[in-house]
Amino acid sequence: MNASKVNSPEELRRLTPDQLPEVCDDLRRTLIHELSENPGHFASSMGAVEIAVALHYVYNTPYDRIVWDVGHQAYAHKVLTGRRDRFSTNRKLGGLCGFPTPAESEYDTFTAGHASNSISAALGMSVASKLKADQPARKVVAVIGDASISGGLAFEGLNNVANTPNNMLIILNDNEMSIDPNVGSLSKYLAHLNTSKRYNDLRYKLFRFFRKIGLVKDSSRGPIMRFANSIKALVSRQQNIFEGLNIRYFGPFDGNDVKKVVSVLNDIKDMEGPKMLHLRTRKGAGYAPAEADPAHWHAPGKFDIESGRRLSSPSATLKWQDVFGDALVELARQDNRIVGITAAMLSGTSVATMQAEFPERVFDVGISEGHAVTFAGGLAKDGMKPFVAIYSSFLQRAYDHVFHDVALGKLPVTFCIDRAGIVGEDGATHHGALDLAYMRSIAGITISAPSTAGQLRSLMATAAKESCGPMAIRYPRGASVGSADTPLTPLQIGRGEKVSNGSDLIFLSVGPIGENVKKAVANLKEQGISAAHYDMIFVRPLDEKIMAEVAASGLPVITVEDGIRSGGFGSAVGEWLAENGSRQSVTRLGLPTDSFVTHGTPAQLYALCSLDPDSIVKTAKSLL
Amino acid sequence: MNASKVNSPEELRRLTPDQLPEVCDDLRRTLIHELSENPGHFASSMGAVEIAVALHYVYNTPYDRIVWDVGHQAYAHKVLTGRRDRFSTNRKLGGLCGFPTPAESEYDTFTAGHASNSISAALGMSVASKLKADQPARKVVAVIGDASISGGLAFEGLNNVANTPNNMLIILNDNEMSIDPNVGSLSKYLAHLNTSKRYNDLRYKLFRFFRKIGLVKDSSRGPIMRFANSIKALVSRQQNIFEGLNIRYFGPFDGNDVKKVVSVLNDIKDMEGPKMLHLRTRKGAGYAPAEADPAHWHAPGKFDIESGRRLSSPSATLKWQDVFGDALVELARQDNRIVGITAAMLSGTSVATMQAEFPERVFDVGISEGHAVTFAGGLAKDGMKPFVAIYSSFLQRAYDHVFHDVALGKLPVTFCIDRAGIVGEDGATHHGALDLAYMRSIAGITISAPSTAGQLRSLMATAAKESCGPMAIRYPRGASVGSADTPLTPLQIGRGEKVSNGSDLIFLSVGPIGENVKKAVANLKEQGISAAHYDMIFVRPLDEKIMAEVAASGLPVITVEDGIRSGGFGSAVGEWLAENGSRQSVTRLGLPTDSFVTHGTPAQLYALCSLDPDSIVKTAKSLL
Repeated sequence: MNASKVNSPEELRRLTPDQLPEVCDDLRRTLIHELSENPGHFASSMGAVEIAVALHYVYNTPYDRIVWDVGHQAYAHKVLTGRRDRFSTNRKLGGLCGFPTPAESEYDTFTAGHASNSISAALGMSVASKLKADQPARKVVAVIGDASISGGLAFEGLNNVANTPNNMLIILNDNEMSIDPNVGSLSKYLAHLNTSKRYNDLRYKLFRFFRKIGLVKDSSRGPIMRFANSIKALVSRQQNIFEGLNIRYFGPFDGNDVKKVVSVLNDIKDMEGPKMLHLRTRKGAGYAPAEADPAHWHAPGKFDIESGRRLSSPSATLKWQDVFGDALVELARQDNRIVGITAAMLSGTSVATMQAEFPERVFDVGISEGHAVTFAGGLAKDGMKPFVAIYSSFLQRAYDHVFHDVALGKLPVTFCIDRAGIVGEDGATHHGALDLAYMRSIAGITISAPSTAGQLRSLMATAAKESCGPMAIRYPRGASVGSADTPLTPLQIGRGEKVSNGSDLIFLSVGPIGENVKKAVANLKEQGISAAHYDMIFVRPLDEKIMAEVAASGLPVITVEDGIRSGGFGSAVGEWLAENGSRQSVTRLGLPTDSFVTHGTPAQLYALCSLDPDSIVKTAKSLL
Repeated sequence: MNASKVNSPEELRRLTPDQLPEVCDDLRRTLIHELSENPGHFASSMGAVEIAVALHYVYNTPYDRIVWDVGHQAYAHKVLTGRRDRFSTNRKLGGLCGFPTPAESEYDTFTAGHASNSISAALGMSVASKLKADQPARKVVAVIGDASISGGLAFEGLNNVANTPNNMLIILNDNEMSIDPNVGSLSKYLAHLNTSKRYNDLRYKLFRFFRKIGLVKDSSRGPIMRFANSIKALVSRQQNIFEGLNIRYFGPFDGNDVKKVVSVLNDIKDMEGPKMLHLRTRKGAGYAPAEADPAHWHAPGKFDIESGRRLSSPSATLKWQDVFGDALVELARQDNRIVGITAAMLSGTSVATMQAEFPERVFDVGISEGHAVTFAGGLAKDGMKPFVAIYSSFLQRAYDHVFHDVALGKLPVTFCIDRAGIVGEDGATHHGALDLAYMRSIAGITISAPSTAGQLRSLMATAAKESCGPMAIRYPRGASVGSADTPLTPLQIGRGEKVSNGSDLIFLSVGPIGENVKKAVANLKEQGISAAHYDMIFVRPLDEKIMAEVAASGLPVITVEDGIRSGGFGSAVGEWLAENGSRQSVTRLGLPTDSFVTHGTPAQLYALCSLDPDSIVKTAKSLL
């Protein structure tokens, strides 16, 4: 049997353990080759190659369930499970999804775009199998990173794991690093477990020995627990946090030693009760440039394999996140009550820019969006002005916290909602589609969406003013629009801008999707159709003066937003007009609410959602 | 100085420690007297009397901050802080709020209606004080119950507490009981800490001794940590979970011994760095009937003080929650794939009914709404049919989990959203106002709201069918409408009902608020106005046939819902009509989106929101 080009777990399981390192080498070569040409999440997947191989080798997948927490880790799993030939389509429209997706493969057991959900989902599967009395008993493994495990959801899962009869295994893939270096006491704690390596090694060896001589049996929980306690009493001076939660702990072991991982998995896979296996891995393992600088190799773009040189040219235009990051540090210089908060998105949101100058006023709380928002509420309550920068789809985790811990108390927290609207290749889990709708359901929050870099700067200056209560500013991924060389002058809240006059119909837009509207307006003009266009800037409050003009005109209205069509900006416009007695037609363009937007380039996805200039033109003409 | 009728922390702090038990006795008498006549949360507040007294005695409130986690505990705090005279207005319209509310008193530092937020909020205040270099240094104390600490947000807070310089104190008020008995491994762990009492006592005594002789100083963190480690090395075989997270742990001590609590607080209040003080309290302490059965005395209604007899007569009509609970167990008998899940609301949602018959198929996951939903996703993925029963305002905590872990995977999870709409006396934090709007922002979920007990049963039967994907069923607090003696016959999804014909205008409603519409229709009829009324049952999909009839009529439309006016049912109707070319007028009645609804009786609050029959009549007449 050839250990190269293994295409399925069945093929893999026909190999000898000695052949597995070769499988790992082959997978690494494949990942390096593919990702050098078709960008994706590199370093995490490289580090988890041995875990993927060992799991599919030891467990009877897909009958047994592997639940990956955040798909960054799972590329080797994808290649191994029949998707080698299609791997070059990864993250492309119509191609593989960058994250495990049940609709794509029976080996992908659960949606894995947002962190920290694997333990809860795997517990559900494990309990389902027990309740159905599946024969043979189905085994379930959650694989969670050391960053993901700091999320509240993961803790809720851990706290519930030992409550119900189940045999699930949690693999802690510990590479000491999320996208940005990891934070939180748990992370320090995990590092400390390493220093107890000798004790844990001894305990594991004794366990194997007792098991061999029959003192410990896989099938009975009691003796194992007693065994664990007695060993502890013998050699330990500490109780493990996980064992405090009644989860048997093994490790740490070298997670890049595939034969070792296979051997440990074989030892513990039939053991009753919940277990945790702590594996230390190296992010980027097997590719020297990535091992040396894993943070920069998280998602490196195209690169030259030999030299490790990045081939993606840095974008000529400033990114939205950098417009935000630069403005934040400027505001922070003017007002020492301004603090920056993010949740494991320090570089992704460019809060890092402020951190470099004001480290004591920047807080990266790790993967803990809820805490980020409630912590901001506490800071605001006692006089600070927190700017909380979180990606739109991740802020969904903090919906209640925005309501309960900020809006109810009218606290001056500014939500800087990055990656709003279509994000492109990351796909359905990551599009920031819902924020306008969910923010609009919460009273008392000013909601805005700049369409230019200058507007973003002005909106931030507005939020920094005295007496500005909670405010949301949402802006997309990628290159910004217009000049960022503008003064930090506050805007009047609820005041939009007229972009162009017109006499046949009216476009109302928020955010940079207005660029597509401008193109549509120009195109319509060539066809003799005169369209007015207003950039509303604020979703709440709407500009009353503009809305009165719109209502007075009686013209057909088309609203355009980079967010779901129902409940967001267009709905706000429709509701305003209905409440003010207008009977004119309102057509809402935006992302669909009856389906989820897939992955692809932003341009492809806008076209799919009828938000490209041509589709906007077509909609406009259909109304006349 | 008289220890009775203390009205402010200033007065309290003029007493001697020996007088404090008398203060506690007086507060208890006040609470018993007040709550026997004006119902509220009894047992938790009785247990926390000494904590409230000790905190206001030792700390310089309101300059120092006490952050209560869930206001159930905080009645003594309210009485002590100038609100004795108004305490009889507790939970009444225009009176005191049942939970700490910053708008009500400077002693109420943070909104405290949803569990688990105190640590994060207190950390924010503590960090704010450090950043502002307040003089004297402001002290911040979070008081969290042993149920609340199981929430993911509390863990995220704990995990971040030791990351930033702060001196906050976390008091764990451990009464071994949430509304229903506590669940989760952490709760077992906390009980275990009690068994280590001798070790912890010894450690505390040694600490006091070393401090006295100058070996330990309050101002320097290093020696204390070294001290702790050396003591540990001497006498302990375990490491405390909290100390694993770098939080100094003290306890457990008797939290109903006010002088002891004062003495410990004085010992540790000036100590640098984050600390946890674990206090054991008795729920209902000081009132024998409540001590004997604290779960039933959580919120007992009116009672006779002498006999402990409850005076609230059991409701003659079946509650919505019981219609749900009874139907769930009936469905569970028919289909063993049905499982029930709740998050510390076992009796409140009546999932307890199913638990009594099928204990192995019911999961109370504690205060962990996110886990409840993701766990349900895992169960559904492997063939079960989970019914997740959570109060509307608490399900807000799981918004992202509904999106990411259920809707994206099209998993057949049924969300049974109890306490939807106005809940009455619990007020702004507890009204289930947002669910229709936030559910409508997520694709692929059928959204329904029964207006009768029979409809609720039928909707549950619908959800239990094969091929029914994710579905939301929302119903309110309190007495149900109509007979529950109906067959469990599925409804056709997206099919509403005509309640009455009419030729002047059309009412569209969902849910039992339709009863008010019926009254309004009858009243209008007496005035010669003929109103049609449709009970739509489904918010998504809307009944296309009814909507086509409505559009064809061209009559003014009034939508009526017990939820926020924007983004919910009325918006769905308005959007449908706009998309289908109708130009008729649409008036949306519902809860406001520019403010939060206060506390009071439901009837009072409906009138405030113009949802009472008279207001509905008025709105209708204004359109004609």
